[in-house]
Amino acid sequence: MSRWAPDARERLETAALGLFVANGYEETTVAQIADRAGLNRATFFRHFADKREVLFGGEDVLAGLFADAIRAAAPDATLTECLQAAFAATEVAMTPQQRVKAAQRVQVVAANSELQERGLLKHARMARSMAAALHARGADELTARLGAEVGMLAFSIAVERWMAAENDEPFPRHAAAALSDLRVRMAELDSRSRRSA
Amino acid sequence: MSRWAPDARERLETAALGLFVANGYEETTVAQIADRAGLNRATFFRHFADKREVLFGGEDVLAGLFADAIRAAAPDATLTECLQAAFAATEVAMTPQQRVKAAQRVQVVAANSELQERGLLKHARMARSMAAALHARGADELTARLGAEVGMLAFSIAVERWMAAENDEPFPRHAAAALSDLRVRMAELDSRSRRSA
Repeated sequence: MSRWAPDARERLETAALGLFVANGYEETTVAQIADRAGLNRATFFRHFADKREVLFGGEDVLAGLFADAIRAAAPDATLTECLQAAFAATEVAMTPQQRVKAAQRVQVVAANSELQERGLLKHARMARSMAAALHARGADELTARLGAEVGMLAFSIAVERWMAAENDEPFPRHAAAALSDLRVRMAELDSRSRRSA
Repeated sequence: MSRWAPDARERLETAALGLFVANGYEETTVAQIADRAGLNRATFFRHFADKREVLFGGEDVLAGLFADAIRAAAPDATLTECLQAAFAATEVAMTPQQRVKAAQRVQVVAANSELQERGLLKHARMARSMAAALHARGADELTARLGAEVGMLAFSIAVERWMAAENDEPFPRHAAAALSDLRVRMAELDSRSRRSA
């Protein structure tokens, strides 16, 4: 077993998701994951705190990318432009390889209510990180929280579209489109006769 | 022990929250809760599926109230008006007595990450129920999801203000004010020079 594989994280992820889908999340052990990846348990724990982190480690990376991009946006950028900058920064994490795994992740999480709750916690943390970064730029607390909720909704919609798409359109494009779709709909919250629509 | 106390639920809730705060959530047993309320375990389980439901049972009630009020709103009501109708309907659940307990609930949940995750799941279910009711009125899926997220953010802000308030202003008023504060801030998502604000 190679303890020094440069692609160890990638291999462990692929092995884990394959086992979760085939045998169930609860039933899969770290030893089995390491074995399937041709690595040992110690290597697994060098890359992931636990089994659950294989499913959710990416969220912490994304929260960091969001916050950094928002902080680095032009001083006169609007909040919407800050969100667009945050989405543009995700390309490094939301790669075509990750897109293949995303469907497996969703399948595994959907089958386990404890994992769903953990996913919501990560989602809430991403929103908080986004809100804090927007607030640090001068947005008042309510505006920052609103921007973060709208941003996270755009992100969720973009993930759904990215996974369902039949082409390899980069994730940031899906996210930008979802955000601008939501901007249009904000005006509709006060329009009448929705029923005749 | 009276098995037939009309205020049993109320008494069990008060006993449970008092014990959770004093001794910790994990450390408190259903037997202790029933004992403190002067009731028996069977009565507890007639009112709550488990200990956790003492903390989160209200969320299911609210989700139902929201959905019913949105469905019953005037046919030409805007989505914002539908949300206002949903908030108005919460008065029966968000009573002054519940306000006293809300602070205890928040304290107990904040101390336990598993409970935080459960709270997020309930929050997500309330949002889904709201979105489904808005969608059923004719709003397209994205508009319904946006309306529900904005509605849930207004709800969260209103709960914070309701708990912090030094008067007994009814919850629906806090919620209506929070929603209109958010409507104002939507316009700000596209305004420049936030930093000079």
